[in-house]
Amino acid sequence: MDLDAGRLVEDLMLGDARALARAISIVEDRGKLWKEIMRRVYPHTGRACVVGVTGTPGAGKSTLVGHVGRSLLERGHALGIVAVDPSSPYTGGALLGDRLRMRDISSHEGVFIRSMATRGALGGLCPAARDVCRLMEANGRDVVIIETVGVGQDEIEVVSASDWVVLVTFPGQGDAIQAIKAGVMEIADIFVVNKADREGAGEMASAIEAMLDLATGPGQERPPVFMTSCLSGEGVSALSDHVEDLVSRRKDEPARDRRRVAVELMDLLDTHVRGILRERLGRDGIYERAVDAVMEGRADPYEAAWSLAESLGFVGGPLDADWGGRP
Amino acid sequence: MDLDAGRLVEDLMLGDARALARAISIVEDRGKLWKEIMRRVYPHTGRACVVGVTGTPGAGKSTLVGHVGRSLLERGHALGIVAVDPSSPYTGGALLGDRLRMRDISSHEGVFIRSMATRGALGGLCPAARDVCRLMEANGRDVVIIETVGVGQDEIEVVSASDWVVLVTFPGQGDAIQAIKAGVMEIADIFVVNKADREGAGEMASAIEAMLDLATGPGQERPPVFMTSCLSGEGVSALSDHVEDLVSRRKDEPARDRRRVAVELMDLLDTHVRGILRERLGRDGIYERAVDAVMEGRADPYEAAWSLAESLGFVGGPLDADWGGRP
Repeated sequence: MDLDAGRLVEDLMLGDARALARAISIVEDRGKLWKEIMRRVYPHTGRACVVGVTGTPGAGKSTLVGHVGRSLLERGHALGIVAVDPSSPYTGGALLGDRLRMRDISSHEGVFIRSMATRGALGGLCPAARDVCRLMEANGRDVVIIETVGVGQDEIEVVSASDWVVLVTFPGQGDAIQAIKAGVMEIADIFVVNKADREGAGEMASAIEAMLDLATGPGQERPPVFMTSCLSGEGVSALSDHVEDLVSRRKDEPARDRRRVAVELMDLLDTHVRGILRERLGRDGIYERAVDAVMEGRADPYEAAWSLAESLGFVGGPLDADWGGRP
Repeated sequence: MDLDAGRLVEDLMLGDARALARAISIVEDRGKLWKEIMRRVYPHTGRACVVGVTGTPGAGKSTLVGHVGRSLLERGHALGIVAVDPSSPYTGGALLGDRLRMRDISSHEGVFIRSMATRGALGGLCPAARDVCRLMEANGRDVVIIETVGVGQDEIEVVSASDWVVLVTFPGQGDAIQAIKAGVMEIADIFVVNKADREGAGEMASAIEAMLDLATGPGQERPPVFMTSCLSGEGVSALSDHVEDLVSRRKDEPARDRRRVAVELMDLLDTHVRGILRERLGRDGIYERAVDAVMEGRADPYEAAWSLAESLGFVGGPLDADWGGRP
């Protein structure tokens, strides 16, 4: 390999966008040099503000991110945007067309936009997104926005890796409240009723505020609810003010969160061990032989998996005990 | 343990609903007896028709499943419904209120409804759903419907374990086409435009048909598109006819699909190996010490994970090679 991780990281840290793009590709693919790049970058990270933006499809998240992003750029911030796209488990293709809504800010030199697919990549999307945010920070960006298309479990996990989570809803969405209830509400720090020019926006904001009042304990700060319209521009600067406030707060309190460190470490361990498992499975066609055994009815999948793990040296663990010994 | 897996499976196979409920709980929690129950049940499975129903929140999936389910019950089928609920990664609580829409059929003695949460359970939702479908089949149900709340990656994976996937959309949903494009279209075998009494339903059905025409190769069968309304009852019996046709087709062709067997085996292996990893991590507080090291800046998470895996006996694998050796 001619590529030198040290040189790449050096260029990246000088603000070079091509070096950033190249490093992201390596890190996303868990390619050669992934670990080396991340180990070099890591000590220089932890002070950027990572904002996760989620909400049901059609809430206008991309357009809103475009507006808030433009506002932050105008105030002198350097911005990274990670657009998490759903992708087919079959083709692995990402949906990029939708991101055209961000096109109006994508030409701004202070912004770097990267799409990531939610395909079942080795190690998962969440660890990769975490790494990409760090690369963007090392590249000089003080705000990184992670935007998801929907509110699936994967996407919730990704935004959970953010410092602050923005939940975007809109009036007229029949089951908005249902979507809000569906596990997303608890992880959100900021609520936005977008498309506020539409009928019912005020009622929806009031309903969310009422729910939040109920959920907020005494002495706790109730998360703010913003009404925004990308047509009229209403509320966009208030939301941007709030995000800017978070950016400066983050710079003053770069402390690492123990829970998030523990989650990241476990993610990395799982990735590593899955890699070892797959490498061993590939040897001598043993995996294919186990699949054959199940296909031909010579073994059930449960016993086949158990025997296979044992033959690869993975022995012990609570599942053995729970399974009640070998039959 | 007083519980006898053999007796439980015997009762379950005689059609006992309480035994089914109990077995599902054990299997969902990956509890003691999980493997033994599944190994006993497995040989009696593979002929039921498993139908996955997905689509964006608000498409009226639960109501539609209720209507189609009632129709199948009236034709003498025994039905199992697995309702996959999103849940908070923090509280693990499932959203059950929404399923009240199914209440009108839930009192029917031919149906068994079970909610499953998409929380990050050991081994994942997909393997658990697969097991629950088998338990329902062994309990005498010839049709099992898996319904998801949204179209997240997790949910797409769950319905991918079905024999047939139904994608439910509705007119007036701003970004319906966007949602359809988002990786779901390729896995769907049946398309439904629900709420067909609303304006724009016909246009939407035509748009989907046009997309499908483009995507269908010569000699391939184009997936059907149904227009349904749970208000007027339009299209519900046509959709039920189609599902009933699939049920009888499935009974004639119970052949196992190699790709799905391979996926299941890998899921089970990952579950097993993750269990072993976690058991070893719990010993002597070594995981907590690694988290401490990262928190205190004595190690970066990448190296901490790598060293930890090695100290637990997980050595080798492609990631070591890719990481370029030890620094």
